[in-house]
Amino acid sequence: MTDQPLLSTLQAVNQSASFNRWAGFKVTHAAAGEAELRMDWRKDDMGQYAGYLHAGMIGAMLDTACGYAAATVSGRVLASHFSVNCLAPAVGRSFVARGRVVKAGRKQVFANAELFAEQDSGELLLVATGNAILVPVETPGLT
Amino acid sequence: MTDQPLLSTLQAVNQSASFNRWAGFKVTHAAAGEAELRMDWRKDDMGQYAGYLHAGMIGAMLDTACGYAAATVSGRVLASHFSVNCLAPAVGRSFVARGRVVKAGRKQVFANAELFAEQDSGELLLVATGNAILVPVETPGLT
Amino acid sequence: MTDQPLLSTLQAVNQSASFNRWAGFKVTHAAAGEAELRMDWRKDDMGQYAGYLHAGMIGAMLDTACGYAAATVSGRVLASHFSVNCLAPAVGRSFVARGRVVKAGRKQVFANAELFAEQDSGELLLVATGNAILVPVETPGLT
Amino acid sequence: MTDQPLLSTLQAVNQSASFNRWAGFKVTHAAAGEAELRMDWRKDDMGQYAGYLHAGMIGAMLDTACGYAAATVSGRVLASHFSVNCLAPAVGRSFVARGRVVKAGRKQVFANAELFAEQDSGELLLVATGNAILVPVETPGLT
Repeated sequence: MTDQPLLSTLQAVNQSASFNRWAGFKVTHAAAGEAELRMDWRKDDMGQYAGYLHAGMIGAMLDTACGYAAATVSGRVLASHFSVNCLAPAVGRSFVARGRVVKAGRKQVFANAELFAEQDSGELLLVATGNAILVPVETPGLT
Repeated sequence: MTDQPLLSTLQAVNQSASFNRWAGFKVTHAAAGEAELRMDWRKDDMGQYAGYLHAGMIGAMLDTACGYAAATVSGRVLASHFSVNCLAPAVGRSFVARGRVVKAGRKQVFANAELFAEQDSGELLLVATGNAILVPVETPGLT
Repeated sequence: MTDQPLLSTLQAVNQSASFNRWAGFKVTHAAAGEAELRMDWRKDDMGQYAGYLHAGMIGAMLDTACGYAAATVSGRVLASHFSVNCLAPAVGRSFVARGRVVKAGRKQVFANAELFAEQDSGELLLVATGNAILVPVETPGLT
Repeated sequence: MTDQPLLSTLQAVNQSASFNRWAGFKVTHAAAGEAELRMDWRKDDMGQYAGYLHAGMIGAMLDTACGYAAATVSGRVLASHFSVNCLAPAVGRSFVARGRVVKAGRKQVFANAELFAEQDSGELLLVATGNAILVPVETPGLT
């Protein structure tokens, strides 16, 4: 179940990042150790050479979903490492990334995420997975 | 030494990707197994919440530099995996990614890349490193 | 539910690898896209300097569990990439690795795995996670 | 140039790990940010099913070389993440892993390593590469 105060906090953080505003990221779910992100497809500035979603955008959504999931339990974090597996061509009218904390330590938070491409039928196809290591930042917490 | 026909081919590929046009990627070097990419910093649509270059953009540059390096020896490729290490805040007036092929196999090409942030002094600081696995696509080759 | 013929095939493959015999790997479950591996802890030849299970052994179990999970659907495979996240000190009387296929393609199989340390109480603690990319080998299939 | 006190310290650490003694790891070089490790091939307990060096042993050498390189600048460390690219069948009479620190931070040390297989001719073939993230441990330093 979505935690409304956490969701509002993440939505505010999301609006504070210029790349996220450009991409149209929307935070659609937040709970302890979980976050979900949505983005509509735009062919005019998000494609790679074959017309699929660019790998950089795939990485951006996965890394951001991991970071927001981490933020729900550890406050402000910075990504120090992330990896992406591209499983299928990322083609859809919109994209949904779901992040989940695997282990939240004091020095490092481990998270993973899945990226789904929403088809015209509404079906969600898994197109990529990712892992991230986030480092909590010693500043006043997220909230 | 730059291979002009390879460079021209990569520049054409680069222009064919809408994300790359939006980001302003410029291919500035190509040789067998090597490629270099540049991008000017724009605070209004490339930043994360603290104002550094967004991790997604870091990943996009590293993955693209790896892909172009792979393309110089293996023709059209698609990224199946990439990973990113964020070593330092990505702050600079422009960014340079240098990709290099480690091993070009028939089924998989392994490449790595470094991302430098150009300071106002002109100095290049290493801010991130990445690895990618690219899969050659069975279509007419790049060249 | 365990698929007995698949399990027997993997157990035979497992016995054919000298490292696996030395480590005492036992394949304890196999089904389409899934495999489980067990290993008893031996302090005299499996430890790192602090007395935990060596990271190399952690990687070996995760990679092998991924490879066996892949083999259930794709026959003989070779690992081309794997990564390991060490979440907690790997301390226990035995270790259990559970591998699962995320996506089985023709050229690459993506799998992930979890490693649990069995405590004296019998409790299983998650101590590491891993991802692997396996390449199917063009020889007569596993079965 | 090898730093003899650093080398002696790493050799002592190496002897304190039971897995490293079993594997016959020898530390053959150490300098600020660098370490080299050697291991002789043994077909009776180090092979995977096709008779190559087991991926777990590949990972163990790469991770250990990264850890020792990190230890030269940051003292005691623990691996929190490592990844391995298997470029070619790991076949040789002995193996050499060379680790190098990319960036040593206070919370995380980034290192990479290359694994070479020594042929009967004495030639060193690159068979695998790896990356690791090491976390400094707050105990009395390595030296």
